[in-house]
Amino acid sequence: MPRTNLKHLMAFAGIVTLLVTVYNIGKCDIAKNDNNFYREEKLPHLDNDFSGTKGFHPRVAQSYTRGKGTQPIEYEEIECVINGDYTVKGRKDGDEVYMPFSFIQKYFEVYGSIEKSDGYERFSFHHSYQDDFPTEPQPKYSPSGVFMSFDLYSVEDRNRVKCISGIEGVPISTQWDHNGHYYPIQIAQFGLSHYSKHLIQPKSKVKVLEDGERTDLSDWLLPDQKSEIRSKMDDRTFLDNGVVEFKTSLSLKNPGISISTREKKLSTLSMDLNFMNNGSVTVLIQMGDGNLFRIHYVLSDTVMKLEGSRDLYYGLGASKKGTWFHLTRLLLVDYQKGLNLQFSKTRSARMKNSARIVAICVRGHGMMDNVTLSAHAHMDLFFDAANYLVRHQNSLGGWPVMVPRKLIPEVMELDSGWYSAMGQGQAISLLVRAYVVSKDQKYIEAAGKALNVFDIPSSRGGITSKYLNTYDWYEEYPTTPSSFVLNGFMYSLIGLYDLKEMATGKISEKAEEIFDKGMRTLKAMLLMFDTGTGTFYDLRHITAGLAPNRARWDYHKVHINQVLLLSEVDSDPLFSSTAERWKAYMKGKLSPHN
Amino acid sequence: MPRTNLKHLMAFAGIVTLLVTVYNIGKCDIAKNDNNFYREEKLPHLDNDFSGTKGFHPRVAQSYTRGKGTQPIEYEEIECVINGDYTVKGRKDGDEVYMPFSFIQKYFEVYGSIEKSDGYERFSFHHSYQDDFPTEPQPKYSPSGVFMSFDLYSVEDRNRVKCISGIEGVPISTQWDHNGHYYPIQIAQFGLSHYSKHLIQPKSKVKVLEDGERTDLSDWLLPDQKSEIRSKMDDRTFLDNGVVEFKTSLSLKNPGISISTREKKLSTLSMDLNFMNNGSVTVLIQMGDGNLFRIHYVLSDTVMKLEGSRDLYYGLGASKKGTWFHLTRLLLVDYQKGLNLQFSKTRSARMKNSARIVAICVRGHGMMDNVTLSAHAHMDLFFDAANYLVRHQNSLGGWPVMVPRKLIPEVMELDSGWYSAMGQGQAISLLVRAYVVSKDQKYIEAAGKALNVFDIPSSRGGITSKYLNTYDWYEEYPTTPSSFVLNGFMYSLIGLYDLKEMATGKISEKAEEIFDKGMRTLKAMLLMFDTGTGTFYDLRHITAGLAPNRARWDYHKVHINQVLLLSEVDSDPLFSSTAERWKAYMKGKLSPHN
Repeated sequence: MPRTNLKHLMAFAGIVTLLVTVYNIGKCDIAKNDNNFYREEKLPHLDNDFSGTKGFHPRVAQSYTRGKGTQPIEYEEIECVINGDYTVKGRKDGDEVYMPFSFIQKYFEVYGSIEKSDGYERFSFHHSYQDDFPTEPQPKYSPSGVFMSFDLYSVEDRNRVKCISGIEGVPISTQWDHNGHYYPIQIAQFGLSHYSKHLIQPKSKVKVLEDGERTDLSDWLLPDQKSEIRSKMDDRTFLDNGVVEFKTSLSLKNPGISISTREKKLSTLSMDLNFMNNGSVTVLIQMGDGNLFRIHYVLSDTVMKLEGSRDLYYGLGASKKGTWFHLTRLLLVDYQKGLNLQFSKTRSARMKNSARIVAICVRGHGMMDNVTLSAHAHMDLFFDAANYLVRHQNSLGGWPVMVPRKLIPEVMELDSGWYSAMGQGQAISLLVRAYVVSKDQKYIEAAGKALNVFDIPSSRGGITSKYLNTYDWYEEYPTTPSSFVLNGFMYSLIGLYDLKEMATGKISEKAEEIFDKGMRTLKAMLLMFDTGTGTFYDLRHITAGLAPNRARWDYHKVHINQVLLLSEVDSDPLFSSTAERWKAYMKGKLSPHN
Repeated sequence: MPRTNLKHLMAFAGIVTLLVTVYNIGKCDIAKNDNNFYREEKLPHLDNDFSGTKGFHPRVAQSYTRGKGTQPIEYEEIECVINGDYTVKGRKDGDEVYMPFSFIQKYFEVYGSIEKSDGYERFSFHHSYQDDFPTEPQPKYSPSGVFMSFDLYSVEDRNRVKCISGIEGVPISTQWDHNGHYYPIQIAQFGLSHYSKHLIQPKSKVKVLEDGERTDLSDWLLPDQKSEIRSKMDDRTFLDNGVVEFKTSLSLKNPGISISTREKKLSTLSMDLNFMNNGSVTVLIQMGDGNLFRIHYVLSDTVMKLEGSRDLYYGLGASKKGTWFHLTRLLLVDYQKGLNLQFSKTRSARMKNSARIVAICVRGHGMMDNVTLSAHAHMDLFFDAANYLVRHQNSLGGWPVMVPRKLIPEVMELDSGWYSAMGQGQAISLLVRAYVVSKDQKYIEAAGKALNVFDIPSSRGGITSKYLNTYDWYEEYPTTPSSFVLNGFMYSLIGLYDLKEMATGKISEKAEEIFDKGMRTLKAMLLMFDTGTGTFYDLRHITAGLAPNRARWDYHKVHINQVLLLSEVDSDPLFSSTAERWKAYMKGKLSPHN
């Protein structure tokens, strides 16, 4: 399994930091350019005054000499005529012509930068912007283990995550709709990334602010004499557990009953809460400029709202009143997403870095327990995602995507309410892990129900397409004509694999049947994605007659990692030989020509 | 139709010669490298002493200055580390790094050379080694016109043509079997190229050595007093035509009855002959060193034989005795193919250039007529090919290839006796033209019979494969698994088109039906060959799970020209949009990435 072990990565990062002062590989432009067939032609630093071979006079070549030992060596400028169309300035030394990297980079889509280490400058040329694969053996994939390399993902930090909903506990996506929507794939990835981080990262330091077992509550400051705070036994009689009851004004003008802290790294707040009225929790954040920023968690159904410039509200859902619930918030993520409402993303990220959590306050009448700050609370977020999926699975077993999707405008479009095989598959991978950890049948039952959507053809609102009436393909985007997005298909196979392995009885049998059909398809169709120099993202060229959609290197690497994973569970040598060839493409190797 | 008009080409060549002193684009290595997945890694002029980033110390960068006006500019050597694997030496000037073309060329498979024109040196960089497409409109394709750009082909000059058989009048191929065999595709291409040349080239100057109508035959020298030569009326009573009867010793020691000439350019010998005994024709060639070389055309069934170093025998077939036949020989081709038996191909080609035809001699007892030397006799060779195909078509309507073919050893192999859809199609294109010119039904009937092979599946010894039970594909190499060679398929479609257009009745109907099925397939499958940067030669990666076989640029250009031809006869915009994109690939444009 090619998943990168974080410890190894960090050790490697250490070496790199030690050695390399400047290392800035030109990043791939990941902007979508579906409508832009030709690569940008206007290269910087190019003379475009060349128009055919006839009648073109380059400036007189300048000759220079340079000392090499005692022997002066001739060295000239030379015009390089590119495919007879335009020129760039090169250098000539004897028989060798040197071409400028500013041209090579754009023309061949490669990467490079000058690095300085050990006092020497070197030019580091890279065919792709993706890192090498680890050379040492990787742990084998397990349906209850780390998911792919998702331990490296930080879903909540993505620009297209509007915020983490306080009502649902899962991210809201602005992809394809700036109003935001609950995107099942993003939610599943959020859960899987936190699950994977939980397995890989060292246990977090936890700062307990309140455990309900203390008699001295004097570190909680009361705002006025009418306010009260006291320990008491948990109402839930079967628990031998102390909680803290608080009573103070509801008003948001009331600073609340507060406890001071000073944290930057321990920025995950967890607490159990039970409000008898419309109470709230406020987190005070000291901004870099010394001002205070307030995040208010309120019993409202409004997801996020900014009032003025320093009061941010997250709704927790009106229905939570009068019941115990567990709240886990990534406070600095919440803070940054709020800043995004008024500042640029860059500025918000900078402001986040200089922020400190200075107090937690409660208001209204309620009870609290287990108030902690920690570096992370991955399993909380993991279960928030799993529970969201259980709650919102519809009667068909699916998680419909409630925004329209124009994969290719007017050619491949989906109306709001579409299902994604990738969404179903990643949700299954998440639910299987929730079941393994919790042993709660509801998770495996939801995963099993999710299989039903695979029975519905994409032409009838489902997710399964049939390539030439022969091969079942599970569509990330179930368009007509089919799009055959490779990575989404393989993610769905991984979900099916997880389920067939960890479930029993009918659920396992059905998962296995769908998985086996998909693997048969994959074996027949995998190499339709091989370009001889990389991979295709989808098969739009075959199904819609358009220019092929090459996978950028990060998707190419995902393809490789998925194939490597499947090579562990299916011994067909196709998978290992293909993965090896695809790896070599990342270093500029080409498949043979005739 | 993108066929290049020869006149235009020659005019263009003139301009290029005028402008360019040195122009030597690195030629593509056309050696087959099916078994050699990775591109050769050992680049010339590279330091391979780099082994990872750790502990590597480049030599101290040398700094030089060069004058630019009055301001000295820093300029340095810099090690370029390629994908962390090895280094090449570049140059650095300010922020710009210059990489050596010797590296770029091998790494990216591109081409370039220094050109000198108008007193200036320029570096001419080319993405492919194929010429540009003509910019002016090309004549429309016609089933009775020039075939593709075959007017530029010279089949007989190819190294893999052993010789042109005197018995059959067509080339013998050494491809896949050094003993030689009659390869239907090569024979059809030989005929089609001469047909196309006939339409495009100016009429040849003809030097008549004997037309049988003269009374004075004194330019024929008799070797002895027993030998005789005289004019007489043609035996074939319906002809009012004079011929020349000759009678001299059969012995090859006899110099024969000879006529002198001195020709280099008019090197095509044509004559009508009728031998009453085992007579022969000898052509005397003066070699560059002054020695004489003799080519003997004898009534034998041995195709070609060298005796000593200067006596070459071509068999005309024993069965020709006692009947009139027309002989057309490319004397310098015959000479060179004989030289190939004792010298290297390069040396033979050089020797050919300094040869002169000095005499034609006849021996034995026979009659001759219409003895000419000319620059070319394209229609003779065209009909030699057409007649060969009529004579050798088997009862199934096919022209089996009588050597085994290992397209991919142990994966895609064909036993001797296989048919090729390309062979059938190109033979049809030739036979259709022979019918158009001659109005002789035998040609169109043979073309019609050739359709029968399309009814036989490749799995049962025929040529038609079915892609996923859905699309009929006519296989150049009908292997199992299918190979789906694109250019061969499109050649077969062109043959079918020619026949459906020029035949009538049932033949036309059947050709149309097979053509339409093939076009349906092509529309569905054409873009399976699009790599996003070029095209695939075949689909071995999909059918056999192997590394994709990218088409080298000459095949890529054939693909484009075939698609352009088919875009003239089918208005589906897929063809024109695809051809435009594929043309752009030849200049380094890439299809978009996601």
